[in-house]
Amino acid sequence: MNQEVNLKILKENIRNIPDFPKAGIQFKDITTILKVPEFFTFIIDSLSKNYMNRGITKVVCIESRGFILGGAIAAKIGAGFVPIRKPGKLPAASYSINYALEYGTDTLEIHKDAIVANDIILLHDDLLATGGTAMASVELLKNFGSQKIYLSFLCELDFLQGRKVLNMFEVESLIHF
Amino acid sequence: MNQEVNLKILKENIRNIPDFPKAGIQFKDITTILKVPEFFTFIIDSLSKNYMNRGITKVVCIESRGFILGGAIAAKIGAGFVPIRKPGKLPAASYSINYALEYGTDTLEIHKDAIVANDIILLHDDLLATGGTAMASVELLKNFGSQKIYLSFLCELDFLQGRKVLNMFEVESLIHF
Repeated sequence: MNQEVNLKILKENIRNIPDFPKAGIQFKDITTILKVPEFFTFIIDSLSKNYMNRGITKVVCIESRGFILGGAIAAKIGAGFVPIRKPGKLPAASYSINYALEYGTDTLEIHKDAIVANDIILLHDDLLATGGTAMASVELLKNFGSQKIYLSFLCELDFLQGRKVLNMFEVESLIHF
Repeated sequence: MNQEVNLKILKENIRNIPDFPKAGIQFKDITTILKVPEFFTFIIDSLSKNYMNRGITKVVCIESRGFILGGAIAAKIGAGFVPIRKPGKLPAASYSINYALEYGTDTLEIHKDAIVANDIILLHDDLLATGGTAMASVELLKNFGSQKIYLSFLCELDFLQGRKVLNMFEVESLIHF
């Protein structure tokens, strides 16, 4: 199968869950594609191939669904793995950021010794929605003086225009809704 | 470097955090080895090589640190990825199990459509301590009638004897404390 056919099949096999985790949200359940060996292999190959020769030293991934594909991408391109986690999960000295959600706020943390200034970074999460979580993660990375950051997502909700918020970066998503 | 030297260096580079997340626990912080590209590659290669030709169809991983290496192992051996998650995270019909911790109880869940009876399973988590979480995960897998389950961990705390609890399974850990 060619790339286009595979992407069509992948998208059709993502399960839509109405009103999860709360009313009005159409949740994209990717477990239905991750569990299929051929799909999982295709996803990792597709998400990795554009980053093979860019000198990426760290794949930074957002807890917790971002860990699933991010770890596999890091292994595939020969980079190290760095987690961005929820508050209280990282045991050593960390940078922290509070950011606004649609309702309320959330906090993300990264270890202060996770990155050095000349690291070339691929920031990965499973989903690009409004871009709020990704921008908060970019802000965390600014603490290290990072100059080069690529952004990668499995799915992007185009109608939420998160890409506009991130327009100073090279952003790639495999599947678009 | 040979395997033995690499394992010695890996172990030396795991950060020990006293009294985290609570008094009396010596937490093994693996972020200090995951972030180093050469170490991360070595870890994934080492954790994958014994499972290359065993017909494994699903790597089942425990949230959330288990996702990091589990996803990469699944990609490396050509299997699908299945998450075991904390309550309320999985959006579709799930099996659930409550199990005892040292203090209190915890709950884990898996989607009812995650596994089929003839799947060959590699269950992965980052740490084998008392074996309580791993046994609860095995109980979840029994719902599917799974006949063949391998267990894999990055680190094992030998003095807690979790391996005894799991003695009906083939258990492999890369680093022993």
